[in-house]
Amino acid sequence: MAFGVLIFDGVEELDFVGPWEMITTWADLAGGPSPCVIIAENLRPIVCANRLSVNPDVDFATCPNLEYLLIPGGRGTRREMHNEALLHFVKTQAAHCRAVVSVCTGSLVLHAAGLLADKRATTHWSTLDQLRAMGNVEVIEDRFTRDGNVWCSAGVSAGMDMILQLIADVSGAEAAGRVQFEVEYYPATTTFGNFGSHPQAPQYIRDAFRRPSCSPDQPG
Amino acid sequence: MAFGVLIFDGVEELDFVGPWEMITTWADLAGGPSPCVIIAENLRPIVCANRLSVNPDVDFATCPNLEYLLIPGGRGTRREMHNEALLHFVKTQAAHCRAVVSVCTGSLVLHAAGLLADKRATTHWSTLDQLRAMGNVEVIEDRFTRDGNVWCSAGVSAGMDMILQLIADVSGAEAAGRVQFEVEYYPATTTFGNFGSHPQAPQYIRDAFRRPSCSPDQPG
Repeated sequence: MAFGVLIFDGVEELDFVGPWEMITTWADLAGGPSPCVIIAENLRPIVCANRLSVNPDVDFATCPNLEYLLIPGGRGTRREMHNEALLHFVKTQAAHCRAVVSVCTGSLVLHAAGLLADKRATTHWSTLDQLRAMGNVEVIEDRFTRDGNVWCSAGVSAGMDMILQLIADVSGAEAAGRVQFEVEYYPATTTFGNFGSHPQAPQYIRDAFRRPSCSPDQPG
Repeated sequence: MAFGVLIFDGVEELDFVGPWEMITTWADLAGGPSPCVIIAENLRPIVCANRLSVNPDVDFATCPNLEYLLIPGGRGTRREMHNEALLHFVKTQAAHCRAVVSVCTGSLVLHAAGLLADKRATTHWSTLDQLRAMGNVEVIEDRFTRDGNVWCSAGVSAGMDMILQLIADVSGAEAAGRVQFEVEYYPATTTFGNFGSHPQAPQYIRDAFRRPSCSPDQPG
């Protein structure tokens, strides 16, 4: 009953560490899947998109059978979506996973592995058109999507929002609440700048900029 | 003009990786301080609170002079608040920092280093009473506080909320908006369970549970 998080050079740090915080807390406090493992193609240190250096726990050969698999985004996905060894690993594990989830452009890897065929999905705002153009997928402009056992989220916060909902679905709202309270994830809704009118802003971001009454939080 | 992030065994992953995502994006896209460096007492791998293994960039001896210093939380702070070498490093760097910021129980380290004297501060909900009992500090139950050049935040999401506000203060709201949009940090306000009535819930969490109209976001 393992939860695996796949990383690779150029992975976006917060795409996987946000969910990692939630799933390890789920395992420790609320009956979540265990062990939680960081997987990479081999065991050398991974250099993330913003230069953080992280050591994987297991490689493709030593990874246990997974019940859950998370694939984060980051610029490295443009290379990994053509990495046959990685796609083989994802397909093989996904075949027995209770859920496969992506954050940001991790959806490109899911698509390349054939896991988004005829499904609803989403991705980082910069990549919505690219994912649409790959075909055979219905791209949704929301924080996250669920279609069968495949979940996809948009940006970094959406990845965390999605995992809390996944925990609620599997273990109940009280378990999700326990994780949320323990890590203290009650974010402000403050919006900065005018990016709600950016031509590539997805619908949920446009909506976020239209709710000033939900942004009362400033330092006292 | 460096931004340093201090880590140690037992550091809470999301406490530092959330801000790391924001500050490195600030550096890359919006004129933020550079380089951004991960600092530890020595260069061996750090084992975080939830078992993620991370490699520091610099140790205390090789760390450049910092303009900004961030101290995350995690159970390791209970040990590090008594680590004289670490406290000496923090005090020495803080003397010339434009801002010193803590996330979660990183505030315990700030207090131990004498940086919260007569200041307003906050911390993780579990540690509000402990911080109050340390004395000579006004503990506030909000997402984050700012008092002079010292900023403190509560839980993991508050650390990210705080950094966006810091960016807005230093570089303007448009710069903060650019970072927020690039990483796509527009979190849902969904609350799970009944933790708004937990006896240790700080005021801002109680408030978060009272705003159902701000929680419309569910997967479509």
